[in-house]
Amino acid sequence: MMQAVFYEGNQEIRVGECVPVAPQPDEVQLKVSHCGICGTDLHIYHGVMDKRVTFPQIMGHEVSGTVAAIGENVTDFAVGDRVAVMPLGPCGDCPACDAGHSHICQNLKFLGIDTPGAFQSYWTVPAHTLHRLPDELSLAHGAMIEPLAVACHDVRRGRVQSGETVVVVGGGPIGALVALVAKSEGADVMLSEINPFRIELAQSLGLDAVNPTEVDLPAYVNEKTGGAGADVVFEVTASKAGAAVMTELPRTRGRIVVVGIFGQPPEVDLFRMFWRELELYGARVYESEDFARAIQLAAEGAIPLDKLISDVRPLSDLKAGFQLMESGGSVMKILLEA
Amino acid sequence: MMQAVFYEGNQEIRVGECVPVAPQPDEVQLKVSHCGICGTDLHIYHGVMDKRVTFPQIMGHEVSGTVAAIGENVTDFAVGDRVAVMPLGPCGDCPACDAGHSHICQNLKFLGIDTPGAFQSYWTVPAHTLHRLPDELSLAHGAMIEPLAVACHDVRRGRVQSGETVVVVGGGPIGALVALVAKSEGADVMLSEINPFRIELAQSLGLDAVNPTEVDLPAYVNEKTGGAGADVVFEVTASKAGAAVMTELPRTRGRIVVVGIFGQPPEVDLFRMFWRELELYGARVYESEDFARAIQLAAEGAIPLDKLISDVRPLSDLKAGFQLMESGGSVMKILLEA
Repeated sequence: MMQAVFYEGNQEIRVGECVPVAPQPDEVQLKVSHCGICGTDLHIYHGVMDKRVTFPQIMGHEVSGTVAAIGENVTDFAVGDRVAVMPLGPCGDCPACDAGHSHICQNLKFLGIDTPGAFQSYWTVPAHTLHRLPDELSLAHGAMIEPLAVACHDVRRGRVQSGETVVVVGGGPIGALVALVAKSEGADVMLSEINPFRIELAQSLGLDAVNPTEVDLPAYVNEKTGGAGADVVFEVTASKAGAAVMTELPRTRGRIVVVGIFGQPPEVDLFRMFWRELELYGARVYESEDFARAIQLAAEGAIPLDKLISDVRPLSDLKAGFQLMESGGSVMKILLEA
Repeated sequence: MMQAVFYEGNQEIRVGECVPVAPQPDEVQLKVSHCGICGTDLHIYHGVMDKRVTFPQIMGHEVSGTVAAIGENVTDFAVGDRVAVMPLGPCGDCPACDAGHSHICQNLKFLGIDTPGAFQSYWTVPAHTLHRLPDELSLAHGAMIEPLAVACHDVRRGRVQSGETVVVVGGGPIGALVALVAKSEGADVMLSEINPFRIELAQSLGLDAVNPTEVDLPAYVNEKTGGAGADVVFEVTASKAGAAVMTELPRTRGRIVVVGIFGQPPEVDLFRMFWRELELYGARVYESEDFARAIQLAAEGAIPLDKLISDVRPLSDLKAGFQLMESGGSVMKILLEA
């Protein structure tokens, strides 16, 4: 069945017909296999990004698939190749692109937000966005490469070294992946999360997960580090509480990586930033090397992706997926299968 | 006349007798020449730091002087040597000291705040705090080395490179020195300040000083940088407005250095930190190499220190100096002469 799922605005989702788009030069048409539902898709569904999207919007950007057709000039990929998509469309001509920061291009088009996305049977994208999946990686796991690449980018921005102490504040899909990637780099990782399901899941993955409403997190981190504090802290909650605690945890000259997307500017303890000469780094999306690293880690089985996939449902279940995520309960990543 | 100036609490200043302290082993007794009044001294006078200081407190830490007597084991300095003091007393035994960050030791004693200071005729300090002044540097300029070392540290934390665009938000003594040090490194420097006297002074020093209540600072910086934004921004106001504008000015992956000492956590646009992958660095006091650099720059005449010294008064005029600073008007650095 050739389907596409349209967001019509006002939290209305319509399942309709997919009209495959023939690939233009330098483009590739994918037969979509799996596509994860991102927190950003939920934000769009909630109307938070109405000014940015155009209706009807096909969302979806955490995708795996096989190449169905290739446009002119495409030589690196062939029909049947199994791929993931790095869904970034930089302009190539702004100061950020000129400075080598094309992933945060000042005119960036994010595929699936600023253009049609992958919640459909066939999706046509620029060939430069493709990353080949090795044979040992399933297409379901392939749909986890995009969020895993976010985590790889965050850990790289934090310059996490083996043996360092890391605290991840927030244990949703991205926070859990950041913690697991940092652990795979040899760091000693603590995870702070308030949702009991997510705490238990993280613990089952071997993470030292604590509930900051029950444990004094700064005291816990100080105790674990001989009074020094953590080397690196990841803020992945985008909450006032997260912004408040993030400056309490690092050692002198420790690093804070801001991953959460804050809707409002929170209060930040700039005195503590000064007093301990802390460093704070914004981290957004990924670069090609993060996709490559994510594929490598996933192919090695270094990240327990199966345990992070809560559910795999048909494409037409997008609305049900949103409702599961809204319940705030026992869910991590939900994949849709085209 | 052997004098000391005591802060008695409740904004009371008493001029009394200096009782010179004989140097113990590894200590040196200085005959104080000049000592600048720091904003921190004004804070103490205003009672903001009553919990930290003990009364009566002799303040003063921006000092120059000559060695009057040396204690046992002191071999690097001799009577008559002209010196400045790096007024830090690290414990040598905490995680920060172990990590090589003794300047922000977790038990740091700051001389003149946590111990008696230099607003007196003779001051006894550990020999390790001394930095020798070259002959071509006057003792009045020697009292500017401590704040100049702060600026050198800030510029080093910001990794300012020749040719980079720098914005300094706040044009008091430290902000002006940061701007001048960055300029001496070859940066293209803009200074944002609202006090007309300080704007005019900065302009007379060749700085591009603008009033952000009259000029749209982000638009001005964008125009000057072809839409890219600044490479490095220094926040030296410790104000809500400064904390708000600091994230608007940098280019993608630009650096913000927080120099201002915030009494309350301000709102900080962490979305912008994320969106542009900005970097924020706390910067506090200095390390030995910053003192060495400050002395080098001052001795070369690279920084117009004379123009930053608004007034030189006798030690007994500390209260009058505070009143001048409180007036918020036509004043930069005030030195007291012992």
